[in-house]
Amino acid sequence: MPVETLIWVGDRPGHVRMIEQTKLPTEYELLDVTTVEEMVDAIYRLAVRGAPAIGVAAGYGVLLGVQELEGLSAEEMLGRTREIAATLGKARPTAVNLFWALDRMVARAQNDLESGLAGDAIRDGLFDEAHAIFHEDQTTCEALGKHGAELIRDGGSYLTHCNAGALATANTGTALAPFYEAARQGKTIVVFADETRPLLQGARLTAWELMQEGIDVTLLTDSCAGRVMFEGKIDAVFVGSDRIARNGDVCNKIGTYSVAVLAREHGVPFYAVAPLSTFDREILSGDQIPIEERPPEEVTCGFGKQTAPEGVKVYNPAFDVTPARLVRGIVAERGVIEEPGRESVERVMREAGIELGE
Amino acid sequence: MPVETLIWVGDRPGHVRMIEQTKLPTEYELLDVTTVEEMVDAIYRLAVRGAPAIGVAAGYGVLLGVQELEGLSAEEMLGRTREIAATLGKARPTAVNLFWALDRMVARAQNDLESGLAGDAIRDGLFDEAHAIFHEDQTTCEALGKHGAELIRDGGSYLTHCNAGALATANTGTALAPFYEAARQGKTIVVFADETRPLLQGARLTAWELMQEGIDVTLLTDSCAGRVMFEGKIDAVFVGSDRIARNGDVCNKIGTYSVAVLAREHGVPFYAVAPLSTFDREILSGDQIPIEERPPEEVTCGFGKQTAPEGVKVYNPAFDVTPARLVRGIVAERGVIEEPGRESVERVMREAGIELGE
Repeated sequence: MPVETLIWVGDRPGHVRMIEQTKLPTEYELLDVTTVEEMVDAIYRLAVRGAPAIGVAAGYGVLLGVQELEGLSAEEMLGRTREIAATLGKARPTAVNLFWALDRMVARAQNDLESGLAGDAIRDGLFDEAHAIFHEDQTTCEALGKHGAELIRDGGSYLTHCNAGALATANTGTALAPFYEAARQGKTIVVFADETRPLLQGARLTAWELMQEGIDVTLLTDSCAGRVMFEGKIDAVFVGSDRIARNGDVCNKIGTYSVAVLAREHGVPFYAVAPLSTFDREILSGDQIPIEERPPEEVTCGFGKQTAPEGVKVYNPAFDVTPARLVRGIVAERGVIEEPGRESVERVMREAGIELGE
Repeated sequence: MPVETLIWVGDRPGHVRMIEQTKLPTEYELLDVTTVEEMVDAIYRLAVRGAPAIGVAAGYGVLLGVQELEGLSAEEMLGRTREIAATLGKARPTAVNLFWALDRMVARAQNDLESGLAGDAIRDGLFDEAHAIFHEDQTTCEALGKHGAELIRDGGSYLTHCNAGALATANTGTALAPFYEAARQGKTIVVFADETRPLLQGARLTAWELMQEGIDVTLLTDSCAGRVMFEGKIDAVFVGSDRIARNGDVCNKIGTYSVAVLAREHGVPFYAVAPLSTFDREILSGDQIPIEERPPEEVTCGFGKQTAPEGVKVYNPAFDVTPARLVRGIVAERGVIEEPGRESVERVMREAGIELGE
């Protein structure tokens, strides 16, 4: 199975062992994180990245802060949990999953306090909660992989963009989960990975993790994706998603939309692989999704060396939106939403217990 | 008017002054080339690049070798011309325009010898021929710019890919010529330049030369082109071409095809700007065009730093083919070939005196 992006080592006291992703793809180094401060640093430096993996790191980060506390009152334990969560939250103030996980940890402590548990028992509950976040992520990846692998044929050839893989989760990833699962089932597949400018997650991370697993991967510049489809080399596209609107529009890394248009042109099915946590009940359609603009230096000085004129204007949106009409299916935990649209997406959200109002 | 990519300085003896393109975009440096060996070095190092500019450099390179010869016999002068051409030809053995220009210089010497001219007169004829190559390139760019500018509106916004600009020619380029001409006519335009991985000609060269001219240019990663079209920001696409088939299929830098598909999806007209020298009578359709594959290091170590795993497979074709059906028009010296196809392209080729057989 895939690389272990981050795991909890030992019992109590234990610590987190993670892949130092800033050293990839040229060096493989494991980082032992033993304190809250070290976890803040690891998240800040992007040693660990990817929404689900950051959520897991946040939960375990809380454990690093509470595991040696003994004999505190329930109120003191809740207070310390809040403080630790506030500290961890400063690591990446825009990472939604960081706050989702921290809120969940604090809520657990709060609930346990309200249930009358003592400080040490609240601390024990936090262990259960952090491990639950980890295991839920594992289960999610497995489910996505299982449903996605049904769309993959032995001998098939697939394209992905960016990195929504093992390195972004505690298991096999989202977009890459179907590849891992198909390989596990004995299917021989070929994966083409867009390098994904400006930050090259495809080159640095996707290519690396698939090579570790022995999956046949070929790296492409982003603008070569059209050519390989033209040559008839791609059976389907699998990408992750940062946010899915209630009408099925898919927000993902910049360049995903171009891949979707090219896939449609060539009759290649385009799949987004996304856990239900990605579905945003606040967003009716993709045009409501704010698109973050990133610094020009990512484009002009991508790798330390300046490769564009001083002062040139740059347009560098981090994401784009792929309209649902270009999406053949959204692979979610409970199955594939074929030809997604408002009705089918909202039905799946309701079935999963997400309240949509109206 | 635009930057002077290369010019002949002085009369006789004179020398070539060129922009040292390897230093762009961070340093602007002029290089004085005074010997054949220096010209070989400049072409080899890509100090001068772009098919038309290489042709001009080759013609002037011959002059550097013959300009100080006095009193040679006609046979001796032809022999020296051949030797110099052979030396220059080694600079970039795959550059078609290099050989086209060198053959033309040798043919001039041969013809003048056959006409009974003496050595010194043959040498003088070579000066005429080299300057003719330069001036013909200037005239070609002007014609392309004039026809292309008719497709550009005041206040319009345009996308280009790679660099087919002043830095690739002795004047305003091919794809960029319409922008220079439109600006000269007083039209205010906005240009979006794809950075053009792997070699970043858009970032390093197109952005730089348009900024020199004061044309509003914004740099994009290649995978952002779809997003800007989605946002309705692009009125038309202008690209150059390395080779045009008799059916109107356009071979150009990798990524051009993706841009053409995206343009079609958004109802944005896609124009290739190409002198008649680009039309290849040997090629009936794009699928007959061999696509050069370039070294993987261009993708894996594009910025001096290794950004992909050691030993990863890479697919790195230098070019792709855009089928004629995606091309709204080919802008050539004699005007725009609208909705190009075999009949219209061959008619223009015949009118230009290109023999097509049959």
